[in-house]
Amino acid sequence: MRIGDTWYRTIWPSDDGVAVEIIDQTFLPHVFSVRRLEHIEEVAEAIRTMRVRGAPLIGATAAYGVGLALLRDPSNGSLHRAEEFLAATRPTAVNLRWALARVRSAVESLPAGERARAAWETAAKICDEDVSICRRIGEHGAVLMRKISTRKCGETVHVLTHCNAGWLATVDWGTALAPIYMSHDAGVAVHVWVDETRPRNQGASLTAFELGSHGVPHTLIVDNAGGHLMQRGLVDMCIVGTDRTTADGDVANKIGTYLKALAARDNSVPFFVALPSTTVDWAAADGVSGIPIEERSPEEVTTARGRVGDGALVDVAIAPDGCRAYNPAFDVTPARLVTGLITERGVCAASRDGLSHLFPERGGLELAP
Amino acid sequence: MRIGDTWYRTIWPSDDGVAVEIIDQTFLPHVFSVRRLEHIEEVAEAIRTMRVRGAPLIGATAAYGVGLALLRDPSNGSLHRAEEFLAATRPTAVNLRWALARVRSAVESLPAGERARAAWETAAKICDEDVSICRRIGEHGAVLMRKISTRKCGETVHVLTHCNAGWLATVDWGTALAPIYMSHDAGVAVHVWVDETRPRNQGASLTAFELGSHGVPHTLIVDNAGGHLMQRGLVDMCIVGTDRTTADGDVANKIGTYLKALAARDNSVPFFVALPSTTVDWAAADGVSGIPIEERSPEEVTTARGRVGDGALVDVAIAPDGCRAYNPAFDVTPARLVTGLITERGVCAASRDGLSHLFPERGGLELAP
Repeated sequence: MRIGDTWYRTIWPSDDGVAVEIIDQTFLPHVFSVRRLEHIEEVAEAIRTMRVRGAPLIGATAAYGVGLALLRDPSNGSLHRAEEFLAATRPTAVNLRWALARVRSAVESLPAGERARAAWETAAKICDEDVSICRRIGEHGAVLMRKISTRKCGETVHVLTHCNAGWLATVDWGTALAPIYMSHDAGVAVHVWVDETRPRNQGASLTAFELGSHGVPHTLIVDNAGGHLMQRGLVDMCIVGTDRTTADGDVANKIGTYLKALAARDNSVPFFVALPSTTVDWAAADGVSGIPIEERSPEEVTTARGRVGDGALVDVAIAPDGCRAYNPAFDVTPARLVTGLITERGVCAASRDGLSHLFPERGGLELAP
Repeated sequence: MRIGDTWYRTIWPSDDGVAVEIIDQTFLPHVFSVRRLEHIEEVAEAIRTMRVRGAPLIGATAAYGVGLALLRDPSNGSLHRAEEFLAATRPTAVNLRWALARVRSAVESLPAGERARAAWETAAKICDEDVSICRRIGEHGAVLMRKISTRKCGETVHVLTHCNAGWLATVDWGTALAPIYMSHDAGVAVHVWVDETRPRNQGASLTAFELGSHGVPHTLIVDNAGGHLMQRGLVDMCIVGTDRTTADGDVANKIGTYLKALAARDNSVPFFVALPSTTVDWAAADGVSGIPIEERSPEEVTTARGRVGDGALVDVAIAPDGCRAYNPAFDVTPARLVTGLITERGVCAASRDGLSHLFPERGGLELAP
């Protein structure tokens, strides 16, 4: 993705081959800053504090984290500790675990001396594959958007999105935003309603930044506004990402997604979820009981981060001193509210049948009820 | 309502009789500050910038505003201009217009020399009546809460509320919060989930402040979290206020209310709206088409107000420079999502039948379809 005159991914190995570099998303949109991670502890901290976030990018970053650990100590113990340590950083995203398992299986049978390099190569492959997967998600989603555009005789297609499932949530392109970028580039008139997405404001800080950088028309709204917009006919479709989708099509995504899905159903607005198949938890059926929901710090709720007049970033207290707060980071949207899943292999119903039709190789053991 | 050792209303005439004093709500919860309003322009500014807000309090404040205008110029022209000027400050709240019409009808047949005093007395009467109405709303709502408490064998009743419909939104007691205060005072175990209510954060700044001052257990959440809490069985009932309710029971309230009502229905959580009958628009039937929705400044969306370390209040920018934003201040919850209306005369269905049963004197001309 282009920032000014430079193409960026969200993560890349350093030139010296002993570190990985990331865009530090905690300073966006105010400051564009690159951060170098040399130790697995730095990788874990970057994931935990959301310097990198978004299910696909978390997986890619963790894969490099194992590589960094093995560079210092390629033993079985080190491999095991790295996987455990990184898996604990964020409990909801399923492809964090998927990426860690993939690196393990790529290196565990190798002699110690070859492990770090193999982990590094696997991480790079995960990144390249993610870019390709997101591109295909974008192509499939763009078909849906073109249909709406045609039905509207070329009038602007208004898309509502929640949180950030753009290129900053992946290695490049994004999931929910990929169809938007591709439609816009293909000349389809698109406008995006951007939910600010409290408490971390990924919509205001990341999605608005991305869409602005790419030149896609967009309007920021508070999380409370989407229902009203749908009721007034101002939204043609919703597209969101996901951190974990069950085999039955229940979708865990950033807190608040469920409320938008309810409003979409109440107003007959199509509600799509864009996902790489690596975010499917093939072992889980019911999302409400089967997906662990991360609880984050209450301070994220009692404060807001922003820029003051002189450009400095500050956290301001918005609640009375000592006010108790509760901060679940995700919620589960039941499959019955989801119009379709946009995957790298096409669009399917949010159901076991839909997913197993597109991913028949998963139709066996893991899909057993 | 008690703040420290002092009982306050939200508005009162000054001792010298030529001004009205208010609690300036734009500094809460950080600073408790009283503001003196001497001119109608100051009254309008206080309403427009939400130094006073909440449908009942807006009405009471506007009534005093007419009194201040008539103190300077008691002519018919002055009366007419004052009414027009104040009615334009907030388009959604219906009892702003009700209060203005009531003052007009109280003074228009009087000689010029008696008008200011009559307006002042009418404003005081509106305030006293509001206190009495809110007390009765509290009593009726407390019966509902006690039923839930009994069903739960005395376990804590968890109530979710949106925005602020407490004593700061009225002259005293509040609407949605009145049943909570009365239940708490009567020894019923109550806990309140407080929606922060972006963009103005009335939940975090006002409701949390009120509940904390009164000693009612409460937890602040982002607006995105309520659906998840209901899905997990953590909410026993929702109670919100309203700025305008139609004769068919559609409810305009702070933006985001509709989303919570959808989640309540999806999870079989009772959803109540507490209202003085002065907020009923007897002439309107369909809320979505019939209630004007105020649009406020985009800056409320692109910024957040809070306290920094040294105690100063600052507005921080949370979005990229130049980011477009849209800021509808209210939404409409259709009557079909409302379990009941809690009024000063009791609880009724959110319907024409329900309202006309409690308010038979309205059953004539105005209720005609």
